[in-house]
Amino acid sequence: MRASAAAWAGRSSRRCLSGRGGGGLLERSTGSSGPFGRQRRWGAELPRGREPTGAPGAGEGSETLLEICRRRHFLGGTRRPLSRESLLSGCHPGLGPLGLELRQNLAAEWWSSVVVFREQVFPVDARHHQPGHGAFRLVSAERLREILQDQELSKEQLVAFLENLLKTSGKLRENLLHGALEHYVSCLDLVNRRLPYGLAQIGVCFHPVGDTKQTPNGVQRIGEKTEASLVWFTSARTASQWLDFWLRHRLQWWRKFAVTPSHFSSSECQDEGGRKGNQLHYSFPWGKEPVETLWNLGDRELLLTDPGNTSALHGRDGRKNVVPCVLSISGDLDRGVLAYLYDSLQLSEDAFTRKKHLHRKVLKLHPCLAPIKVAVDVGRGPTVELRQVSQGLSKELLENGISVWPGYLETVHSSMEQLYSKYDEMGILFTVLVTDATLENGLINLRSRDTTMKEMMHISKVKDFLAKYISPAKNV
Amino acid sequence: MRASAAAWAGRSSRRCLSGRGGGGLLERSTGSSGPFGRQRRWGAELPRGREPTGAPGAGEGSETLLEICRRRHFLGGTRRPLSRESLLSGCHPGLGPLGLELRQNLAAEWWSSVVVFREQVFPVDARHHQPGHGAFRLVSAERLREILQDQELSKEQLVAFLENLLKTSGKLRENLLHGALEHYVSCLDLVNRRLPYGLAQIGVCFHPVGDTKQTPNGVQRIGEKTEASLVWFTSARTASQWLDFWLRHRLQWWRKFAVTPSHFSSSECQDEGGRKGNQLHYSFPWGKEPVETLWNLGDRELLLTDPGNTSALHGRDGRKNVVPCVLSISGDLDRGVLAYLYDSLQLSEDAFTRKKHLHRKVLKLHPCLAPIKVAVDVGRGPTVELRQVSQGLSKELLENGISVWPGYLETVHSSMEQLYSKYDEMGILFTVLVTDATLENGLINLRSRDTTMKEMMHISKVKDFLAKYISPAKNV
Repeated sequence: MRASAAAWAGRSSRRCLSGRGGGGLLERSTGSSGPFGRQRRWGAELPRGREPTGAPGAGEGSETLLEICRRRHFLGGTRRPLSRESLLSGCHPGLGPLGLELRQNLAAEWWSSVVVFREQVFPVDARHHQPGHGAFRLVSAERLREILQDQELSKEQLVAFLENLLKTSGKLRENLLHGALEHYVSCLDLVNRRLPYGLAQIGVCFHPVGDTKQTPNGVQRIGEKTEASLVWFTSARTASQWLDFWLRHRLQWWRKFAVTPSHFSSSECQDEGGRKGNQLHYSFPWGKEPVETLWNLGDRELLLTDPGNTSALHGRDGRKNVVPCVLSISGDLDRGVLAYLYDSLQLSEDAFTRKKHLHRKVLKLHPCLAPIKVAVDVGRGPTVELRQVSQGLSKELLENGISVWPGYLETVHSSMEQLYSKYDEMGILFTVLVTDATLENGLINLRSRDTTMKEMMHISKVKDFLAKYISPAKNV
Repeated sequence: MRASAAAWAGRSSRRCLSGRGGGGLLERSTGSSGPFGRQRRWGAELPRGREPTGAPGAGEGSETLLEICRRRHFLGGTRRPLSRESLLSGCHPGLGPLGLELRQNLAAEWWSSVVVFREQVFPVDARHHQPGHGAFRLVSAERLREILQDQELSKEQLVAFLENLLKTSGKLRENLLHGALEHYVSCLDLVNRRLPYGLAQIGVCFHPVGDTKQTPNGVQRIGEKTEASLVWFTSARTASQWLDFWLRHRLQWWRKFAVTPSHFSSSECQDEGGRKGNQLHYSFPWGKEPVETLWNLGDRELLLTDPGNTSALHGRDGRKNVVPCVLSISGDLDRGVLAYLYDSLQLSEDAFTRKKHLHRKVLKLHPCLAPIKVAVDVGRGPTVELRQVSQGLSKELLENGISVWPGYLETVHSSMEQLYSKYDEMGILFTVLVTDATLENGLINLRSRDTTMKEMMHISKVKDFLAKYISPAKNV
């Protein structure tokens, strides 16, 4: 264990000496040529750093993780501890501020890799409710009260009312497919009816949890999940190639941000209708759970949207006019957040204070996903001036889209070691320490989450250094 | 009319000559010192440009707008024309791709001005449904079927079932307050219990539309709206100052992006409970409609969350421990989108082809809000090479967060004049034309939506020019 920890520190410090300053910290951003460069490094390097030290797979790690996530506000509503089940089913009070920012970052990465850089993908907005069949019906409370106040009603009338309710009441969406199907025709002319093209949306979907018997009064519990959905319209001729393309794309995407990419895997699946599809899983300590599903739905759903008028559905495949196949690619971002939290936890012996049983707990979240990139703290020196400097730096960083934890506002004193371990648990990439030295020569102390190395850097360099460190994986 | 149009063109062209190239286009970004500078310019300048030429207030303008919005995919689901009512009530198939990107930009601006740059504001995530009273109840369809299949049930049992339904079924959220109240306690320690602090969320809320009598089968129609909510917890001592602060902040924010800022106004209001509040309105052609509401809710709601244990709710106001007042500041982004669309429409005689009855239709959306910043088109020359250049430029722009319309993919030929008027209706700020000249000397042709001026610019300068043009209003 010590060996590997030493290797960590050793490698970094060597670089630190060889490099023209900042090398120690820069190693990941400079060392990796683009996202795949980085991916290989993450995949190849970090497991070495952690296998000996108890991967999160270990039961201990799993418990520790949930405890850290509660304490550090990745998970919200901390009154009673959350069960793994409630997390997986989406039946919990929701994520905490850090968890939300993690999910926002994940959603932003999804959006830029699936929508922004594709000329033939457009956003759509499905409504949360729609007419038709579904697990949950939306009933007007006012209407219910009316019925109950009406003493005259016979049993038959009540039954009729309920049947009517079942037929006519709206339902909550269980996926985002219907929005894409509704907008397919009107968006066709954005691409001159040329296939393939896609419609994308990120939104909350609803699903029944458990079964009515278990719950009191037969009220069914409702789970919510944030779905990231791409619906891809392509000619039947190329549908299977496209399904393969998206399968590779999605698997690569999930792995890109992982400490252990191999924990994301794919497998084939079939629905009741015998339609082929693929699932992407993450290997949680307790087993695999799906994070994304890809289906080739054929043209059935699309034809149902406008049975009378097939020609309106025609898209151009070269010179031919065809009704396209519908590929549905939808990921669960809430489960993604959970997966990356489990993936990122590392328990390792502190490389510096070599205390045997004191584990250093770090969430090694990918630089793009980490909810907070840098914490700004003040050391010894004139409080007012140091705070002004800290505030100035924070503002500069925020204006460049680098999220900051304002440690300088902290009134309760705690040692730097305590702060570092707190920030490691929050997954904060770097800690900037502004001291009276900063007032003299403009040098701040920069400490890295991943290497635990500290070095001096001129305050004017911090922004570019961080921007460079975070950016490489951004553009895919 | 001609006079003003001429003034437009004249002013610009003069600058064009005086300026070292690009002046004509740069006028707004350089001319304005920050957002307020720009705001004044927008306020002071553009009305001159438009009052004589029929503001969107004119009935004609109003009709024209909806027609443009449908044609240019700001509004979705184009089968049957959308009524103003359905737009206001949120009962429509949803926005089109351009409308969605407009709303995304609006949401991003809200988020950065309310959350990102405030150390004491954190995101929360309220669930879409919750137990308790509300207009819409979520009923398990499965459970309904069971009841209906059971022939044995007496009328009493049916009534009991319905009463139980009314008592126990979940409801859809009608605002985002409950999420903030739920997370208030757990987020207190992110600020060491120091007041004031805030919790923010953007999400969809649901409201009943019309009344059950009107609609068939007594099914109540459901409206959806995207709410941007800040819940601000502050000591009663400073509550009213804070309400004033946020009122000013919010009004300024709405006006910042408007062609005619004065169309956004505020007024006081009261709820049934006699609690004071403020409303922000936009003056639509048919009258004022609220876009945002600010309430001082006192501490009642908060006390209800944990009646037993008041001390858990205590925040620090200086040395005192107090249960804070709750300020609720919530805006309707869907209506905001509608407001800015109406605000941005300009009908003016074409400054160049002086055709009497041919109106130039432009959506002068604020640079930060415009869903697409630049269109890239190819002129005469070798198609393949020109496309490669266009693609390269587009990629560079996208990587810098500048949205691009890939006009170079267009296979159906149309004249530049046709393209320009199409892009003006889409609110696209600039059109880049890549020609064979570009292949020789790297010069592209850049045309401005607002000035209709064209000028040559080296392709390597385009990115920085656009970034500079779009950015100023970003940081507030």
